[in-house]
Order: sequence, then structure tokens, then C-alpha cells
Amino acid sequence: MSSASNDLEIYKRQGYGGKSGFGQRPAAVLVDFINGFADPQQFGGGNIGAAIENTANLLPHLRGAKVPIAYTRVVYAEDGSDTGVFCLKSPKLATLTEHSDSSQIVDELTPEAGDYIVRKTQPSAFFGTGLLGWLVGRQIDTLIVTGCTTSGCVRATAVDSMSNNFKTIVVSDCVGDRAIAPHQANLFDMEQKCADLMTAEELAARLSSLNA
Amino acid sequence: MSSASNDLEIYKRQGYGGKSGFGQRPAAVLVDFINGFADPQQFGGGNIGAAIENTANLLPHLRGAKVPIAYTRVVYAEDGSDTGVFCLKSPKLATLTEHSDSSQIVDELTPEAGDYIVRKTQPSAFFGTGLLGWLVGRQIDTLIVTGCTTSGCVRATAVDSMSNNFKTIVVSDCVGDRAIAPHQANLFDMEQKCADLMTAEELAARLSSLNA
Amino acid sequence: MSSASNDLEIYKRQGYGGKSGFGQRPAAVLVDFINGFADPQQFGGGNIGAAIENTANLLPHLRGAKVPIAYTRVVYAEDGSDTGVFCLKSPKLATLTEHSDSSQIVDELTPEAGDYIVRKTQPSAFFGTGLLGWLVGRQIDTLIVTGCTTSGCVRATAVDSMSNNFKTIVVSDCVGDRAIAPHQANLFDMEQKCADLMTAEELAARLSSLNA
Amino acid sequence: MSSASNDLEIYKRQGYGGKSGFGQRPAAVLVDFINGFADPQQFGGGNIGAAIENTANLLPHLRGAKVPIAYTRVVYAEDGSDTGVFCLKSPKLATLTEHSDSSQIVDELTPEAGDYIVRKTQPSAFFGTGLLGWLVGRQIDTLIVTGCTTSGCVRATAVDSMSNNFKTIVVSDCVGDRAIAPHQANLFDMEQKCADLMTAEELAARLSSLNA
Repeated sequence: MSSASNDLEIYKRQGYGGKSGFGQRPAAVLVDFINGFADPQQFGGGNIGAAIENTANLLPHLRGAKVPIAYTRVVYAEDGSDTGVFCLKSPKLATLTEHSDSSQIVDELTPEAGDYIVRKTQPSAFFGTGLLGWLVGRQIDTLIVTGCTTSGCVRATAVDSMSNNFKTIVVSDCVGDRAIAPHQANLFDMEQKCADLMTAEELAARLSSLNA
Repeated sequence: MSSASNDLEIYKRQGYGGKSGFGQRPAAVLVDFINGFADPQQFGGGNIGAAIENTANLLPHLRGAKVPIAYTRVVYAEDGSDTGVFCLKSPKLATLTEHSDSSQIVDELTPEAGDYIVRKTQPSAFFGTGLLGWLVGRQIDTLIVTGCTTSGCVRATAVDSMSNNFKTIVVSDCVGDRAIAPHQANLFDMEQKCADLMTAEELAARLSSLNA
Repeated sequence: MSSASNDLEIYKRQGYGGKSGFGQRPAAVLVDFINGFADPQQFGGGNIGAAIENTANLLPHLRGAKVPIAYTRVVYAEDGSDTGVFCLKSPKLATLTEHSDSSQIVDELTPEAGDYIVRKTQPSAFFGTGLLGWLVGRQIDTLIVTGCTTSGCVRATAVDSMSNNFKTIVVSDCVGDRAIAPHQANLFDMEQKCADLMTAEELAARLSSLNA
Repeated sequence: MSSASNDLEIYKRQGYGGKSGFGQRPAAVLVDFINGFADPQQFGGGNIGAAIENTANLLPHLRGAKVPIAYTRVVYAEDGSDTGVFCLKSPKLATLTEHSDSSQIVDELTPEAGDYIVRKTQPSAFFGTGLLGWLVGRQIDTLIVTGCTTSGCVRATAVDSMSNNFKTIVVSDCVGDRAIAPHQANLFDMEQKCADLMTAEELAARLSSLNA
């Protein structure tokens, strides 16, 4: 038996990996699908391009089911007044500013009027932002997460979503990372402890049944 | 070149893995070193026992340097009134209650009077607790993290610590997990993006220089 | 025209004092109705006794409408490890500990199994507690606030409730304070900017219509 | 004896109104000194003009002592996507947007490069913002608060500052409100329970001694 299978057996025996399910009022957050993370020369690479394409195909299903949609961007002040420890670990992040091309949402996923744009400086979409109040104000019970990177801002967002008691869905083919091993390892962690995984196809089917 | 080396190269080229450093006023948090996570029949196993032993050896160095120490426990209400999504993913967590043996801090690490005991219901030691205020009130600039599990509550705590702008030190041989692959994968993620790694031996040396 | 009338006119002209309304899924939080705040020799006095009595009469209406109920207590650690600036402003608060008589919920309002007990160290029932997640997990849209003191923990709780986007109802005769001028001034502030005021009688009528 | 004197006696007897003091590393936050709150035809009036003038005179003392300075603005999205309950209570707030004249900081207090600009949608400068991390990253122990309105965003900010364990100083002649009775009532509440009051003159003297 492989090591991964062994690991899964341990988690199962200890009661991890339960399903938290899908509620009645979902919202979606698209994490950091900005030019800088789409570009392998900046912060991108790996399967992030595929995640963008799959999310673009998912969007009409989300809109069709009237799911409120939030997008996150990483935005630091141009004078560096709000950088901190994250920018010590990853100094180039400070180049993502309100008007830099790198911090604009990718063309494939251009927001519509009424979508909620979250500016953030930390990994989690909840940290220092209005996302939680936006969800509460809409009586959301389920948060669908797509975006990048799986091992960074997606993971941090999913952990906070679960901690705030939203049923959390990570769309496994709509999240991506610059490297595949961290992508896989974090999908494993999230499924065991904070989110249910669904493919875009499974989610689209679920959304159409919501509508029915 | 192995896949892991390739990954590291990508992170390096994109500017991840910087050092956030060690400040002047450290505190330490010992995450979830409770009986239930020490016991392989409950939530434990892997290298958690070694992490407890190494933390027990580190404690005199922390106390000698007058580092304020916080311990976390997972504590749910006995009537289940405060369970949520985390307990859907991992139902047995709800058995960790104020007086259950499973939720008591392990004997090897018994707190002293004046240490701060954090009761929590979510992965991060910061979520729904007074930890942040406790750190602010002591003008802490550096948070040392030990505990378990590396891929769960340690990771969530380290991400929140960094997001709050504490220089964050994860003590690599004082954190443990029920399975080694998630332990390693999460040490990698944390070192790249939110924390500096130090061994207990390196940290003890650093603490003694603080004192000098 | 009196000064108060003049003030009201200014607020009205600037557009304050709108109604946020009453939603479909209310919860209630009873703030700090503990022995120490019922006792004029400790932290009590004024109209707190009347607020307790009125809340006791309101409770059957809340339970009849299946409104989830949370109670807050002020609870500090017995060794003082978690005191901070609040205890510099008001040192006697540190005597409110898990087992002190002063920090027990008053007999008139004894919680039932399944009610949620929030232990807190700061004014707001949301600060460093699991209250927000408890509300999110129940898809609450409206938070009913009773308790004491109007000018302290009730006000702080109402501001956080509104900031988190809950329609917030302060029950005007179920909140009390040790002195009447601050009670009145804070009801004014809250009605103008963060909460709708209802009497217990108005609320009971509203709850019975929810049920119908 | 007047009612106010009676009230004060009660608070004193119960142990309120202690001093939390002034630490070693202060920062200042100037709350919502934006055109809309300076204009009596919009949200202004009362003694807000005087508070702006007094703060302008205080600023050189803050800068001379190298006190880090944050400014808050109220900024909603132009498409209304992030309004909530606060805008039900006070609908005109939604007109404060990134580029509206009303939401620009008043000319008398124009920020310098490196000052931290906080965009917020709720009363407290801490709510859904990066202010707390900015303070933690600078090891701040004392938060000086000026701004408007005393009964609204200043009060909410001071309560959160204290709750996070910052020694909190409200500069009594550098905060203002559209109406004087709420201004006075909230200064009373804050002094009793969450902040020490200082005049701008007292603070300037204190800052010069820090420098010495």
C-alpha cells in the first residue's frame, strides 16, 4: 500500500474527511485571479491557466443560479505604507497596487457591475476585508471557492470560511498553483478538514438543481 | 532533478521563501498539545510524540528567556451548542470538552500559573479567542509556534500570525502530525510564505543571545 | 425647542435614524445578565433590575418562536493571565471568573441546555468569541439584543452586530444601566446609527407573527 | 447635587474611570476627517470644525515625535455592491466613494507619503481593515484617537482599540460631533470605560517628553 493510501486510512480511522454538504444559499469567491498570478514570469505557472479557463466556463452557471460573486485582488499602497511580514516572505507582492497591470483581474473573468471586489493584503480573502459582512448580509450558508494559489490564498480562505461556519466547497479543477505537489497536498488537507471538493461539472449540476 | 527541487526553484525565482526574521519581544504558543492529539487511537500518531518531547526540552529555554507562553486546547460545550462545520468534517472533535481527559494539556507540558490558556473551537489559535489581544498587550513582535498538527492547527495559527504581522517562527522539530507527508508539505508551504523555520536547538541558541 | 429636539432634527436632516428592519431568522443575545451586574453594590443599579425582569417575561416569547438564544458572561482567568487595558479602566472586572458567584447568570434567566454561553473579556459579545460563527451557522439575519449595560457591553455588541450586517434590534426596556443619563444617551446613538429600538411588547407581537 | 455628579459618583464607587496610561510607542489615527463630515450640509456641524483645526495644530507635534499616523476614510463601491445595514440606518453614507469629493480627507489635514490611509465601510477603523496589523507591525502600545464623530466612528474605534489592548488616548478637543450632547455623553462613556482623555496641549507636552 502506498504512503498516500496509508495516510488516508489514518485520517479515515480518526474520523476526518466528513462531508459538510451544500446548503441553500451559496456565494462564490474567485481568489486572486489577477494578471500577476496568471503569468508564469511573475507569480503564476503550473495549472493556474487551466483553473482560469475552467472558472470562466463555470461562471455562467453561477450567474444563472443567481449566486452572488466576489473577486479578490491583492492591492498594496503605492508608497508601501501597508506592507508587512507577508512582503518580507515574498517581497514582489508589494508591486501589486491599485493601478498596476499585475493586480488587475484577468480578462477572461472580468467582473460585472454588482459583483463584489475585495482588496486584500494577506492570504485569506476574509482577513482585513468586508467579505464576511457581505456574506452575512446575504444570509449565505455555503461558500464556493475557486482561484489561486491552492496552497496559499485558496487554502487560507477555505480555512477561514469553515471557521466562520460556512459550508465550504473548493472546486478542485478551478483552483490552481504554480507547482503541482503543493496543489495536491493542499487539496488533500482541505478535503480532510475544512472543505468538500467538487469538480466544476459536479458543481454546475448542483447549481442547476438549486434553480429547479 | 527531483520534482521537489523543481518546485523549490520556481518558488525561489518568484521571490518566495524570504526571511521575516526574529524580533526583540517573542512569545510562544503551544498549539493543541492535549491528550487526544498525543494518542494515536484518538487524533494522534506520526511524529507528534517527538514534538511533545522536543517542546518539553525547549520549555526551560523559553522560560529562562522570560518568553510569555500560551497553550491552546480544543474545548467544545458539553451540550454541543457551539459545534459547527469543523465538527461536520471531523465529528469526534466534539468530544473535546472542558473536563474530558482528551482535552487536557499533556502531562509533559503542564502549564504554570500565569501562562495563558486559550480555549478554541477552530484550527487557528487566533480565531474566536483572546490571543491577539494578549500578544498586543505585551508588545510582542515575534510568535514562536510549536504544537500539532502541522497540517492543521499549526498551519492555521502560523498563517494568522503572519497576517497579523508577527514575525513567525515555526519550530520544525517541535511540531508534529499524524502523517508525515502532510507534515512535510506544510513545513514547505509555511517556510515559503508565512514563517521562518528553526530547530529547537537553533531557537534555544537564539533565546540565550536575547538574554545576554 | 429643547436641545434634544434640536439634535434629533440635525440627525434627521442628515439622513440618520433609518430603519434596518426585522428579517426572517432572528437570534437573541442576552448580554452580561450576571449577578455582579444585577447587584448595585458591585456593577449594577439603575434600571438593570427592570431589564432583567422584562427579559424574563420576554424569554417565553423567544423560545416559543424557536429563536436561538445566546447568553454572555464576563469571565477572566483566576490567575489574571488574560487581563488587559479594560481591567486598567475598571479593575474590579478581574474578579469575574469562571466559578465566582458574580459571573454566574442571574437566576431569573437560567439558560436551558442547548442555549449558547459566550465567555468574554471585552465589551462586545463578538470580540474574541465564537458568537459570529454561531450566528452564521444558523443563517441568522437579525440579532435581538437585551442586557446590560446599555452604555457599555450592549452598545459595543450592537455596533459589532450592525457592522457584521445583522439587522439589529435593541429591546429598549430589556436593556439597563447603572445610571439613567448614559442609558438614554446610548439608546439615542444606537437608534440613530446602528439598531432599531423595539419594546418587549412590540417584539413579542412581532415574534408571534413570525410563527403564524 | 446634579444628576451628572451623581452618575460620576456611582461609576467611581464601582471602580470605573481608572487610567490605562500612556506607553512607549504611540501611533495616531485620524478618524473620518473627510469633506463630507466637515460640511454641515452633509454629515458635519457642531464642533467638528474646531476638532479639525485643533488636529491640524497637533499634527506637527505628532510628526516631530515620529508617531506613525493613520487616516480613515469612508469608501463604498460606486455600484453599491458593499453597502449593508449601516446604509439602511444612514443611506447617504453610500455616496462616499473612492473619487467623490465628500470622501476626500480635508485639505487642512492632507496626508504625507508614508502615512497609512484606511478605507472603511463601518464605524470602527478596525472593522474590515488592515489597521490592527499595521499597529502590530510597528509594536504600537498606545493609540491616539482624533476625528469625528465622537458618538460614532471615534467611539467605535476607541472601544476596539481598548478591546485589542492598546492604551487608548482620546484627544478631547480634537474629536467632534454634529451635536454637542452626544459628544459630551460619549466622552463620558469613553473616559469611564475605554480611554484616557487628554487635551491637545497635554498630549503635545507628553510627546515632547517622549522625544527628550
